[in-house]
Amino acid sequence: MADTLSHKLIRDHLVAGEMVPGHEIALRMDQALLQDILGTLVMLELDAMGLDRVRTAPSVQYIDHTLLQPDNINADAHLFLKSACERLGVWYSGPGNGISHPVHMERFGIPGHSLVGCDSHTTAAGALGMLAIGAGGIEVAMAMAGEPLYLPMPEIVGVHLEGELPEWVSAKDVILELLRRHGVAGAKNCILEYHGPGLAALDAMDRHVLANMGTEMGATASVFPSDAVTRDFLRARGRETDWRPLTADPGCRYDRHESLDLSTLEPLIALPSSPDKVVPVAEAAGQPLYQAYIGSSGNPGYRDFAVVAEIVKGRRVADSVSLDINPSTRQVLAALIDEGHLAALVEAGGRLHQPGCNGCIGMGQAPAAGRNSLRTVPRNFPGRSGTREDSVFLCSPETAAASALTGTITDPRTLDMPCPRVREPARMAVNDDWFVPPLPPERARQVSLLATDNTPPLPALTPLPERIEAPILLKTGDNVSTDDIMPAGARVLPLWSNVHASAEHTFEALDPDYVARARERGEAGHVIVGGANYGQGSSRENAALVPRLLGLQVVVAKSIARIHWQNLPCFGVLPLTFADPADYDRIERGRTLVIDDLPGQLAAGGRIRATLDGKPLELLHQLSPRQVAILSAGGVINWLRERNAPPAKENAS
Amino acid sequence: MADTLSHKLIRDHLVAGEMVPGHEIALRMDQALLQDILGTLVMLELDAMGLDRVRTAPSVQYIDHTLLQPDNINADAHLFLKSACERLGVWYSGPGNGISHPVHMERFGIPGHSLVGCDSHTTAAGALGMLAIGAGGIEVAMAMAGEPLYLPMPEIVGVHLEGELPEWVSAKDVILELLRRHGVAGAKNCILEYHGPGLAALDAMDRHVLANMGTEMGATASVFPSDAVTRDFLRARGRETDWRPLTADPGCRYDRHESLDLSTLEPLIALPSSPDKVVPVAEAAGQPLYQAYIGSSGNPGYRDFAVVAEIVKGRRVADSVSLDINPSTRQVLAALIDEGHLAALVEAGGRLHQPGCNGCIGMGQAPAAGRNSLRTVPRNFPGRSGTREDSVFLCSPETAAASALTGTITDPRTLDMPCPRVREPARMAVNDDWFVPPLPPERARQVSLLATDNTPPLPALTPLPERIEAPILLKTGDNVSTDDIMPAGARVLPLWSNVHASAEHTFEALDPDYVARARERGEAGHVIVGGANYGQGSSRENAALVPRLLGLQVVVAKSIARIHWQNLPCFGVLPLTFADPADYDRIERGRTLVIDDLPGQLAAGGRIRATLDGKPLELLHQLSPRQVAILSAGGVINWLRERNAPPAKENAS
Repeated sequence: MADTLSHKLIRDHLVAGEMVPGHEIALRMDQALLQDILGTLVMLELDAMGLDRVRTAPSVQYIDHTLLQPDNINADAHLFLKSACERLGVWYSGPGNGISHPVHMERFGIPGHSLVGCDSHTTAAGALGMLAIGAGGIEVAMAMAGEPLYLPMPEIVGVHLEGELPEWVSAKDVILELLRRHGVAGAKNCILEYHGPGLAALDAMDRHVLANMGTEMGATASVFPSDAVTRDFLRARGRETDWRPLTADPGCRYDRHESLDLSTLEPLIALPSSPDKVVPVAEAAGQPLYQAYIGSSGNPGYRDFAVVAEIVKGRRVADSVSLDINPSTRQVLAALIDEGHLAALVEAGGRLHQPGCNGCIGMGQAPAAGRNSLRTVPRNFPGRSGTREDSVFLCSPETAAASALTGTITDPRTLDMPCPRVREPARMAVNDDWFVPPLPPERARQVSLLATDNTPPLPALTPLPERIEAPILLKTGDNVSTDDIMPAGARVLPLWSNVHASAEHTFEALDPDYVARARERGEAGHVIVGGANYGQGSSRENAALVPRLLGLQVVVAKSIARIHWQNLPCFGVLPLTFADPADYDRIERGRTLVIDDLPGQLAAGGRIRATLDGKPLELLHQLSPRQVAILSAGGVINWLRERNAPPAKENAS
Repeated sequence: MADTLSHKLIRDHLVAGEMVPGHEIALRMDQALLQDILGTLVMLELDAMGLDRVRTAPSVQYIDHTLLQPDNINADAHLFLKSACERLGVWYSGPGNGISHPVHMERFGIPGHSLVGCDSHTTAAGALGMLAIGAGGIEVAMAMAGEPLYLPMPEIVGVHLEGELPEWVSAKDVILELLRRHGVAGAKNCILEYHGPGLAALDAMDRHVLANMGTEMGATASVFPSDAVTRDFLRARGRETDWRPLTADPGCRYDRHESLDLSTLEPLIALPSSPDKVVPVAEAAGQPLYQAYIGSSGNPGYRDFAVVAEIVKGRRVADSVSLDINPSTRQVLAALIDEGHLAALVEAGGRLHQPGCNGCIGMGQAPAAGRNSLRTVPRNFPGRSGTREDSVFLCSPETAAASALTGTITDPRTLDMPCPRVREPARMAVNDDWFVPPLPPERARQVSLLATDNTPPLPALTPLPERIEAPILLKTGDNVSTDDIMPAGARVLPLWSNVHASAEHTFEALDPDYVARARERGEAGHVIVGGANYGQGSSRENAALVPRLLGLQVVVAKSIARIHWQNLPCFGVLPLTFADPADYDRIERGRTLVIDDLPGQLAAGGRIRATLDGKPLELLHQLSPRQVAILSAGGVINWLRERNAPPAKENAS
């Protein structure tokens, strides 16, 4: 049968399950990518599992989010992560090397390999013909420990590209057009597989833009063929031997179809504050500008900076505009210097920042309140810039540069200049000296983790008792997000590596007294009742782990968002839903939930008979036998540790 | 009579007073320099004075401290400052242009002119033969309004330099040697005037290093002749016409003498945590390193970066070291790019940051706790790096670069390489497009200040009543600093522009209930009693202004530090000392101080008869008639506004 490339990649890594959309499949992960904000917890989890050395290769820890260092917390975390890399056999890409996604492509990406990363934009590596998927930290930790990655088999959407992009239109406009058509949930549980003659003119970093921002459409992954373009990219980086051709079979069948004639596109822009509020730039033109922000994994290629340099060269950006240049990687920065583009950017009035994620995730360069910021980044959710009342637009580098010159939002086609043509240099050196490779096992065993007060070991989780009798300490409305459960922001983010310190902030906006009530109850345990879509939003696993440490045993909700639902049993919390959603209304805080014979009921099927203040209450679970085993062990870490433990020895004494 | 250059510069600007050390002199200020942290208050003060246009020319507002922008507060402040520049006739040097001191030298410094700035390192411009002095914000505001700057006539210290620096030794080692000899208070109330044949081999930016760090010895100013070296510096920047020769008369007499044979120097290093804990690098060699930090106004020259580049070129800094490169100015950055040095720094593993003050004042790049950081900055006070338990050393760029390569503190002479020879390019372009010039008056009048919630107008201050009857709300011990009165740090610093918000933090570590007591008492007023050396430390004027707004009327102390003593009457607070210091012991919080006929007593002389709970108490004041007039008006702003008010008109209605 003629196969899509996605099917080939999945089959090559399939450990269990059937390739039927919606069915759970288990995939072997070749490579792993960690960023720093969530990497600390992953390393603590690997340490708690007792793992001696990671099984994925390469596994790479990137320092790209925590670069500002207003105090020692971030620097301390860098040292901790470096020591964990040495201990566990992980590559270390230190501060200054750049954003994980483009660096991974430059140095480590290999067509046909699978990659899991604790960052939603891990999908970008699909640009090289990889099967690259973002996941929660504990799932990445499991993959690094040699376990498969579990997910529902996605639908495969074939995106047929034809034609060539007009002048002043580039890859960002392509993905903005797809977002305009399908919205931020349009590719949920899908893989976007690009094919067709239009691909030939999109270089590997253009493809990165599309694969990266497939995440903005909710896609599980984006997949590109590995072709001559891919070979050129690897050859320029001295890695042509990593290349192999990969493509869909002629005549293969996609589950869904999309098609786009690139020649019909015009410059597009996403209005504040969602990536799918897309209109032609011309419709937004003339609005005054505070900032033009260049950088991030949303437009990380050499050309994405060089084209800005060509546009502003010999000119001066408007006095009112902060043109912020954030090189994506050390390699890109070095090339921009060599080719004279950095000089043009600096001479024209650009502000040069260190390579990294930076303002894309609110780590610096926050715009003035209520002022317009044009950014080449992938997301413009409200407040993500660091400014509560922000006004962030997403656009191509061409549009951002043209607007920086005029001081107002400007369609680049209206500039009185020829469209710059930029090609990346034939050689884009990647210097291995920029990375710290894994230590050999015999030396790794001698390394101790450089733990700090802010990276305490994960406390051991106790298994669920056979009988639960616990009060409901919190009842929420619908659509509670993981942000509500565990806040982010400059104040709390540095504490994420410290479950004790971050515990103080649990549910703080929703119910500032919850933590005190939970602590009072302690290990005797408690229950949270949620509405619909409980735990939506970011995949942050501490939204499950930290409440568990505060004594949470059971979540009962009308419905639970998918990733949070997966995270809960991983940390030993039982996720349940109401058999009759109307029961939600008769529950109040302070009531007592009792579940008898939990092991027997979980094994028997989907129904759980409970009582609420003595009256019967019927609840449901959708856990697989694997998840029940994990839950019963008190979470993934206990489960893995038990499985990997050497057989018990006779006591010799 | 043969004159020192300092005497010539002072005489050229003398408005009042005698040039006798210790006597108050009044100096006309030609130019003014504002940085951003303290500039907001200066602009609010100028606005409150009702000034239409500043009298100093050029006056320049630099954005160099507040560059991280984790939220909108800093960006909002930039917009406010830019609007104030437009309103008042001030140049605006926006974020990305670099640190005030080197940028001012590059673009605005003129031999023979006087300069006042609200930053202690304003003294750096002495490198060009300027009379350059740092002062509190309100004094800078007064100078910008056309008033003279008042200060005690300094002693002139002649520093005779001979010989040439050996290989691997540079300007930083010269000033570290002077700090080693004289300590951090060794040049208090002095001007350091450099002369002798050793000067010829120190270029203008080398001289900047010395003039900048004269502040670390407590010097009022540092003065260099304007000679062929100065001419070269200005010529390279297209400003040769600004040059004029300036030198001391042969045979002139200095108040004190110092002399230094440059050829005898070796690489030096200041140990944590004071700039005068200086030893040869060899004595500290071998200690492991977390960070080598290059940048700041302490080593801002092109050569200070280029020499690092030459040392690390083609090598790789140690894995354990964060080599942080902070270009001092846009011009230096552009030249480093053009000459290939930036490429060498990036290739060797350096982390490149935006031009600005950055980590020198704890705005990013804070080291890991307890780890050694080698810095080319001027100061290493405890915690200044942003890390509470820091370990910061001061050294030359050569020593920092050598240590970055080896990973331990290293005497650069022990490197196995020839000493790099670096000369700055013949042309160092300064592009006027990088600055926003003052608006013409007719356009300036149409500009409104872009005030934000965080830049509220200064509240009007009421004049002191003729009779004071107020309770003592706080009694402190000795050596209370302005840091104790008004805290700094990342938490409070952004609030300094907002007297209402920062008021909440007044004395917060010393007495968290003081603010509540003061607010309860309100405008009825209160008294603070201090021990010896009350108000020592930083010149921050909000340590006087904010307590005044909380109702402070009188400070009575055993002694009051000089700058704070000057600041208090500027904001309408009466500073007094005990005639008998033993009276301090019989005072308790809650007692009532009464002073009758305040105007009469202040005019009559230095003695103030008061009562404490009805019993007589004799106090002293040292205020000049000018200060009494200011105090009586309710501070400088009222005083100036009254003086500058047009004659009262007849009411025409």
